[in-house]
Amino acid sequence: MTDFAATKALFHLPEGMIYLDGNSLGPLPLSAPDRVARTLAAEWGEMLITGWNKAGWMAQPTEMGDRVGRLVGAEPGHVVLGDTLSIKVFQALAAALEMRPGRKVILSDSGNFPSDLYMAEGLIAALKQGHELRVVAPEAVAEAIDGDVAVMMITEVDYRTGRRHDMAALTRRAHQAGALAIWDLAHSAGAFPVDVAEGMADFAVGCTYKYINGGPGAPAFIYVAPRHSGTVNPALSGWLGHEAPFAFDPSYRPGPGIERMRVGTPPVLGLAALDAALDIWDSVDMDALRARSLELTDRFIAGVEAACPTLRLATPRDHALRGSQVSFHFADGYAAMQALIARGVIGDFRAPDIMRFGFTPLYIDLDDVDRAVAIIAEVIGKGLWNRPEYKTRARVT
Amino acid sequence: MTDFAATKALFHLPEGMIYLDGNSLGPLPLSAPDRVARTLAAEWGEMLITGWNKAGWMAQPTEMGDRVGRLVGAEPGHVVLGDTLSIKVFQALAAALEMRPGRKVILSDSGNFPSDLYMAEGLIAALKQGHELRVVAPEAVAEAIDGDVAVMMITEVDYRTGRRHDMAALTRRAHQAGALAIWDLAHSAGAFPVDVAEGMADFAVGCTYKYINGGPGAPAFIYVAPRHSGTVNPALSGWLGHEAPFAFDPSYRPGPGIERMRVGTPPVLGLAALDAALDIWDSVDMDALRARSLELTDRFIAGVEAACPTLRLATPRDHALRGSQVSFHFADGYAAMQALIARGVIGDFRAPDIMRFGFTPLYIDLDDVDRAVAIIAEVIGKGLWNRPEYKTRARVT
Repeated sequence: MTDFAATKALFHLPEGMIYLDGNSLGPLPLSAPDRVARTLAAEWGEMLITGWNKAGWMAQPTEMGDRVGRLVGAEPGHVVLGDTLSIKVFQALAAALEMRPGRKVILSDSGNFPSDLYMAEGLIAALKQGHELRVVAPEAVAEAIDGDVAVMMITEVDYRTGRRHDMAALTRRAHQAGALAIWDLAHSAGAFPVDVAEGMADFAVGCTYKYINGGPGAPAFIYVAPRHSGTVNPALSGWLGHEAPFAFDPSYRPGPGIERMRVGTPPVLGLAALDAALDIWDSVDMDALRARSLELTDRFIAGVEAACPTLRLATPRDHALRGSQVSFHFADGYAAMQALIARGVIGDFRAPDIMRFGFTPLYIDLDDVDRAVAIIAEVIGKGLWNRPEYKTRARVT
Repeated sequence: MTDFAATKALFHLPEGMIYLDGNSLGPLPLSAPDRVARTLAAEWGEMLITGWNKAGWMAQPTEMGDRVGRLVGAEPGHVVLGDTLSIKVFQALAAALEMRPGRKVILSDSGNFPSDLYMAEGLIAALKQGHELRVVAPEAVAEAIDGDVAVMMITEVDYRTGRRHDMAALTRRAHQAGALAIWDLAHSAGAFPVDVAEGMADFAVGCTYKYINGGPGAPAFIYVAPRHSGTVNPALSGWLGHEAPFAFDPSYRPGPGIERMRVGTPPVLGLAALDAALDIWDSVDMDALRARSLELTDRFIAGVEAACPTLRLATPRDHALRGSQVSFHFADGYAAMQALIARGVIGDFRAPDIMRFGFTPLYIDLDDVDRAVAIIAEVIGKGLWNRPEYKTRARVT
């Protein structure tokens, strides 16, 4: 069992703040400043160029990749860290299309994060091979899988509603139709147990700055199933994915397995902060995490629904269909969220009317839920959000 | 005038080390640890998600991009930071091919860094549009530019020899033939004054962890000429390059100008360290830097040649053709470099026989050159490299 009171003590949480936005950016692990300071002073400062070997920088993308891999059920040696999630989406998509040359459809759904769709658009436009991005409603994905689909690209948990897809079922359906499956785990990794191996995902990608708490702009990850990783063609064929990067060969030869999905120089400082976050994750039981997450979201839903009849639940009640966030529709959700933030309840707003709250057992407990519910009840019940200063929109929400 | 004794005092240089490998990884600016610690504690820790606005993280890729832009002669507002250099090469190449639909040749030279060639190979293989990577000898580039060339992709300074191309002349030749020019400034930015605007480069890319001293894995940069930046098509069309990233539109619309070359979430910790490095650069006079660089490399060449007749200069004597490094051919260069490193002179080795030394006026002075020459003279003159322990090759050199 994981002791969540103990994990909570490992994070810096500002005084008086109930942080329900860990699904956007996780908080600072208390050990991260020392860990990063060590990388700066003892590694970069003292080892300089030799840090690539001596400090192990060069091996971190795969070594730390395995630690992220455990959280998503990946076979060891099949996850690598680097780049941003959008780049990893592109990499997976390009590889998948190459594996299904006769098929022209990338299937996704309107619950996908826009950047995933944008990357598909950009790839299709560049390829000029007659591919098509077919975007259907989340509930229509299964029936939209047909023999034209090269790859189904789905984000498991909808960033707005927290609705969770059935990875295993959709992937099975895709495979039956001869298509490949790419799963974006941005709102899954660290949110609940994921099993990409059991779910038969062909590719999975995700970020480490949300539930994993790796820090702003922490590196992304990519998983390639063992049945593909030795043969997949990396369109983004950078030198660190080469079989022998330091041979400086004039021609590219893909490295063994997942190594070929590396591209350029690893972001060492970002990896150092992530390392501190993973130290916490290494001892977390994912089933216990899921049980606590459901306890938190159930309690939050019940509390808010009882106190605020004007808020309409956007998140599925069915546990099997729920990620680790709770969203409500509220016409004045933007202003209401500003009013909550002003009172220390940090969630966020997603157009047109979604108030979004992330639940992260590592540092959010039942008491936080109760206090958040009380503040929400007051803000909504008394209409405290109805003030001009809460209605001005900032650039980043 | 820049006071280089003063800039030297701004870096951490390990006791007893003469660091001539700043062309691979620059040293730690003394202000970087505090700067990064502030980002961790005061920004990530206290501001959490609001740091994207409050701490200015979201704007840093373009704001800091302009500070890098000054070093390479870019017009303000036309450089953005992010990703790795390999990704930026891909982005520039994909955009350039799109702009020259009737032409099928990417022209490069054998002095280019392998990753640039690999990225071109990967792009060509993915596109399947009959493109060809034509790699010629460095001295044959000009005459190889013909009407089939869509884009000439050249690294200005050869990473092995330090030989520098004439950006303006080659670009003019490319433009006369109707081709575009991409310049990789990995060994130029921060090494000497570059003028991408005057040189008429269509695209330029580079990294910030070599001469700029941004730290291991610091973000790369891309420049797009003003005449293209508003119309160029970003194949890597990520959400932060969207006209309105936080509108979460289902379809991509490129952002204004250089903003469209952004892809995913900025690497905030890497940017923080780079910010400290750029504080130093902001006051550096690039002409003074060049004058000092040539003084250092001239003195090093003269000293080594006088003391070590068995070392053959690989770097051009002509100042106009020289970057800010000096390389020598030596059959036992690998072992010799290990022997030098053991004695505190840090350079590196590049196959098959190149001993490479970078000269970086911000923290290397004439006294360092003289001391390095004396140690090289001893190691080579007395054959001190000829020991088994210097001949075992590490993975990363």
